[in-house]
Amino acid sequence: MAKVNAHYRKLQAGFLFPEIEMRTRAFLENNPGAPVMRLGIGNTTEPLTPTVVAGLHEGVDRLARAETYSGYGDEQGSVALREALARRYGEYGVALDVAEIFISDGAKPDSANIQSIFGQDSVVALQDPGYPVYVDSNVIGGRTGGGADGQYEGLVYMPCTEENQFFPGPPEGKVDLIYLCSPNNPTGAVATLGQLKTFVDYAREHRAVIIFDAAYAMYISDRRLPRTIYEVEGAKECAIEISSFSKEAGFTGVRLGWTVVPKALVCEDAAPGEVNGLWLRRQTTMFNGASNIVQHGGLAILSEEGRKESLELVAYYMANARTIREGLKGLGITCYGGDNAPYVWMKTPGGMPSWAFFDKLLHECHVEGTPGSGFGPSGEGYFRLSAFGHKEDIERAVQSIQDNLAL
Amino acid sequence: MAKVNAHYRKLQAGFLFPEIEMRTRAFLENNPGAPVMRLGIGNTTEPLTPTVVAGLHEGVDRLARAETYSGYGDEQGSVALREALARRYGEYGVALDVAEIFISDGAKPDSANIQSIFGQDSVVALQDPGYPVYVDSNVIGGRTGGGADGQYEGLVYMPCTEENQFFPGPPEGKVDLIYLCSPNNPTGAVATLGQLKTFVDYAREHRAVIIFDAAYAMYISDRRLPRTIYEVEGAKECAIEISSFSKEAGFTGVRLGWTVVPKALVCEDAAPGEVNGLWLRRQTTMFNGASNIVQHGGLAILSEEGRKESLELVAYYMANARTIREGLKGLGITCYGGDNAPYVWMKTPGGMPSWAFFDKLLHECHVEGTPGSGFGPSGEGYFRLSAFGHKEDIERAVQSIQDNLAL
Repeated sequence: MAKVNAHYRKLQAGFLFPEIEMRTRAFLENNPGAPVMRLGIGNTTEPLTPTVVAGLHEGVDRLARAETYSGYGDEQGSVALREALARRYGEYGVALDVAEIFISDGAKPDSANIQSIFGQDSVVALQDPGYPVYVDSNVIGGRTGGGADGQYEGLVYMPCTEENQFFPGPPEGKVDLIYLCSPNNPTGAVATLGQLKTFVDYAREHRAVIIFDAAYAMYISDRRLPRTIYEVEGAKECAIEISSFSKEAGFTGVRLGWTVVPKALVCEDAAPGEVNGLWLRRQTTMFNGASNIVQHGGLAILSEEGRKESLELVAYYMANARTIREGLKGLGITCYGGDNAPYVWMKTPGGMPSWAFFDKLLHECHVEGTPGSGFGPSGEGYFRLSAFGHKEDIERAVQSIQDNLAL
Repeated sequence: MAKVNAHYRKLQAGFLFPEIEMRTRAFLENNPGAPVMRLGIGNTTEPLTPTVVAGLHEGVDRLARAETYSGYGDEQGSVALREALARRYGEYGVALDVAEIFISDGAKPDSANIQSIFGQDSVVALQDPGYPVYVDSNVIGGRTGGGADGQYEGLVYMPCTEENQFFPGPPEGKVDLIYLCSPNNPTGAVATLGQLKTFVDYAREHRAVIIFDAAYAMYISDRRLPRTIYEVEGAKECAIEISSFSKEAGFTGVRLGWTVVPKALVCEDAAPGEVNGLWLRRQTTMFNGASNIVQHGGLAILSEEGRKESLELVAYYMANARTIREGLKGLGITCYGGDNAPYVWMKTPGGMPSWAFFDKLLHECHVEGTPGSGFGPSGEGYFRLSAFGHKEDIERAVQSIQDNLAL
């Protein structure tokens, strides 16, 4: 008499992006041929750069010859790729050992799975709005009560509002796990060193663990802003960092990311090294490494040429972000983000509910965006527009909003 | 005050293969230059076949051009690849809908994660010996008590012994989840239709769920033996099947597999369709799809040319299996498996403990194998030799055993 994991029953509605996909598909079925411009899912659109393409081809060719063929690699990733990442952290003044870096098939699985190495009774705090995977994985992991109106009992929501410029202070009570994302998805806000320091201080005082999502780090051009939480002194004692090649190199479909679990990290019942060892055990038991072909592509991303090309790719998308931000501002719409992040966070006109604005924008302008409320209760009344798209499509979308949105 | 997931503390020793790796590395440090022949980890050694190499290159090239670039795909995999798999199941007389097939980055993660959609109080039955991931993932998932001598309280072990020809009957008591693997890792035994039917009957009677690992299905050449559990009538109501391209096409490092969750599957508190929906929710929330490049390679594997080439690859390894089996039998060693599976399961000479024989074989013959006890208590006194290796290395290893093993 097998039973299902009852925590799944608590989950509300579908996962955000499949829901968007479904509504857009339904719209297209009723309006065949309508040129829907997709600024919803943050999905890269530009081809891989030449150096990375060459690296991937080489990765394939290595498997075509007996002398260079390889089967299973280390679950935590190739040493060469981890060394290359460690060198990049070195440029930020952060010294990491390769054993502190775990290569994976992306930031989403790591963000979802990281909770599983912590106790089920952990109290979880999250930025609200935030990436739904943090919430849903903890619901499934049994760390919440029931849910209603997009909120779950037992979670500590840290509202990100206009008042705090979309970056909250640490919780007042005691929490165990804290999810932070900077540059933020969805608000586009970027934490300063000082803001991150308040969380590191809190975590060290309470022996809490910060799970820091840095998937958009390479979109920071203002070098006074930290690209890694380890730029904050003491962060290695309390922070896990998750990151990805998806957005910096167009690897959304190629799948490659990494997670840093410092050996210095401690928590209530784990001495230095133990949490690092737990994640190693998790990965060696439940994962089998990122594709060796893809890891070879990752090495190319981190080569000198590859990095130059990635910078251009990022600049391309950031020009789109500017187009969106300026276009909306021209309509008198209040916008945030989009300067060191590929997302523009707009207030819905007249405080319209987010999903209602989703339908309005889709029907009036043929533009797909992401409802702010899909990221948490404090996202209600906001809307995310993604800068990932062909330049021409983004310009067309902004033009369509300017021409067709009935304000 | 974050705490770790205490279930991890119950896990005994390291995961089996890292432990083997560690002992072999230590041996090599003390015996530099010793030509260790690795018949331990079942790791493919032969290059990818030409059609698959071409498919992977094409997968890369598609990402190099704006017109064919793609970012995130469906988490459950490309429709084309799922359709191609459905066609192959069709050849076995099994009709599957594409929504019943979920593409993943391999059978190991799926085997490890599948437990998470079932209740924590599920009683789990497993073949003993068996693939350690089934046990360890359920320990981490909280479905066991403490462990000692390679066994955990609360698990139902189904011994696979000489007496039952290494395939057990269903448990006597009631269990909820049953892991079966055929062709079996590690014993090389292959279940008949009749043997699988006893489990399907049991599961339907008790509303239990069978998790069937078919990763070695393509090593079955005797076509009276079932390559999928769905060849048994009624299996769709009670069985999830997990499989992989790793062993049939040399994708161990490339990472591609799939899981079938039939819509007809039910359990105590889930109507038809619900378990399928739960796995979809799990994958859309906690996974982000297998690499699009790799999925393109998967399509090539399933093309007509690709399938012919895979058959040759499988035949190559099966010739190795014969070499091992015949070579050991010539020494008077009792062997099983190796006829429709790439593993030979040998009795250790004189009933020597498995790890002792590991060290003996490594030191005397410079051959790495896998201790049977690493797969569970009933594996004690047995030893697994893998047929994955270059023909010449396998021949050399068998020769070395014949020349150097002190019996």
